[in-house]
Amino acid sequence: MRALILNQSAGLGSAERVALRDDYPMPNPRRGESLVRVRLAGICGTDLEMTRGYMGFNGIPGHEFVGEVVSTTTSALAGRRVVGEINAACGDCDFCRANMGRHCPKRSVLGILGRGGAFGEYLCLPDRNLIPVPDAVADEAAVFTEPLAAAFEIFEQTTIEPGEQVAILGDGRLGAIVALAMKARGLSPIVGGHHEDKMKRLAGAGIAAQPEDRLRTGFDVVVDCTGSAKGLARALELVRPRGKLILKTTVAGSAGVNLAPIVINEIQVLGSRCGRFRPALDALRSGAIDPRPLISGIYPLEEGLPALARASEKSKFKILLKAS
Amino acid sequence: MRALILNQSAGLGSAERVALRDDYPMPNPRRGESLVRVRLAGICGTDLEMTRGYMGFNGIPGHEFVGEVVSTTTSALAGRRVVGEINAACGDCDFCRANMGRHCPKRSVLGILGRGGAFGEYLCLPDRNLIPVPDAVADEAAVFTEPLAAAFEIFEQTTIEPGEQVAILGDGRLGAIVALAMKARGLSPIVGGHHEDKMKRLAGAGIAAQPEDRLRTGFDVVVDCTGSAKGLARALELVRPRGKLILKTTVAGSAGVNLAPIVINEIQVLGSRCGRFRPALDALRSGAIDPRPLISGIYPLEEGLPALARASEKSKFKILLKAS
Repeated sequence: MRALILNQSAGLGSAERVALRDDYPMPNPRRGESLVRVRLAGICGTDLEMTRGYMGFNGIPGHEFVGEVVSTTTSALAGRRVVGEINAACGDCDFCRANMGRHCPKRSVLGILGRGGAFGEYLCLPDRNLIPVPDAVADEAAVFTEPLAAAFEIFEQTTIEPGEQVAILGDGRLGAIVALAMKARGLSPIVGGHHEDKMKRLAGAGIAAQPEDRLRTGFDVVVDCTGSAKGLARALELVRPRGKLILKTTVAGSAGVNLAPIVINEIQVLGSRCGRFRPALDALRSGAIDPRPLISGIYPLEEGLPALARASEKSKFKILLKAS
Repeated sequence: MRALILNQSAGLGSAERVALRDDYPMPNPRRGESLVRVRLAGICGTDLEMTRGYMGFNGIPGHEFVGEVVSTTTSALAGRRVVGEINAACGDCDFCRANMGRHCPKRSVLGILGRGGAFGEYLCLPDRNLIPVPDAVADEAAVFTEPLAAAFEIFEQTTIEPGEQVAILGDGRLGAIVALAMKARGLSPIVGGHHEDKMKRLAGAGIAAQPEDRLRTGFDVVVDCTGSAKGLARALELVRPRGKLILKTTVAGSAGVNLAPIVINEIQVLGSRCGRFRPALDALRSGAIDPRPLISGIYPLEEGLPALARASEKSKFKILLKAS
């Protein structure tokens, strides 16, 4: 099948680490797994980080997708259009039993850890990870389920009261999605950005945005979506004493940030990663969130390499790959 | 009066930054403040950090003390033996009105920020900061009220259920005090240390301790009392996914720690600093906590310089200064 392949062998530069292949072997579903034909996949910051060495993953990257089930032993899934939770847990360790499969130490993660991902024509996931997509949700919206679920994860971890002042650092894909999720929950976040064109576009989608260096300090909640050590340092400046700092992005390598303010100001730092798909899919179905204004381009899979390059451009939001 | 003086002018080495003076001017109580004669003061890690440049403070360091009120306009305090909350807040900003005076941006902090401290014969604090010490609490126990209050602050910020596995990193003064506070709350923490003699002494005080590198991963709660970037990195290894990491110590300068596990494992990091004195004093009065086994030595103020040197030795717990 056709697929983008990541090769993290030592000595390769960023550009050499990804290749388009037309003869890559089809994935084989194991017991309890379905084979899914990918319809649309989204390029995320984590995918780009991986081309720079993050996670040491080899194989097909990509974890945001909507597809259709082409082979399954679960009749309720046969032929259905689906999205899929990306953590494939073992199902019987302490974490899985505590309903924390997303932290199962034996898990594989679609396109990130031990399991080929969505930047190919087909992928496999356990049946229990797959969720049928309501007809009312177009492919171009459904493909945002995964990042939107990650944004909603914040509300599974903490409570943000209406009226609390929320800043989101980073005017990229993730910052925009988190802002949409917050708005859908009745909050009025302000995005602090660095790119005038992106901030204008956010404003067009009804999201308040302003240059990050003009934000005033004292926010009750700051969400760091920058993926940079600088962003974390800035977030620590902006959050009020006893406030919350939510980290949505990881940074490859070490972050040389002075962490003393966490203690001095008694900040609560919350690491936040993947979330449940159901609330995200519900918000897409009800129309509470329409992420489609964030699409900057849709490329066929065979143009995957230029698509990755586009996704790295500072002016771009979400770039999608159309596998078939 | 006699006092230890910290001078952080550029170009001085650690040893030259502290001097003993016999002719230092007495502090002058402002309106609403009392003059306190210091009976006993404790040397804390923060004091030692300050001799290495932390906070850029000039003047008399020291913030752990028990003393007696020798001049006041508040009759209830006259002549009383007291301890004192170290943050002197403005009393009418947003933080003060929200009962968060310990985070008042205009505050001075005894012996740390804009206010001379306890390593002299006398100090001043606002009357509202001073709390009479019950007769049943000896000076040698009362002098631990401040660090004990900081330990109890953890329980003001979060809930730790009985049965949760708690590790405390650092077998020093602070780690020991936090362990005593946790035990008083019905928890069974284990201290991870590096010094055989200290761990033996902790065991003698009924606190479980073992070499830090032998701790197994998966703790529900890890409290970092190491004051080192290495400690933070180790804490991130030891805490389970979705667990809590409580930071009780600041590190001077930047910490080169890979923070990705905070996000990947969705850790809740809580910065925790000073606390209310009342619960600490109650625990000392009831006998729930007796910190006196942690005293490694009591020095007269004129031997303050060798006392600071002793406090820096890895084998020592709490060193006290007797001012008069």
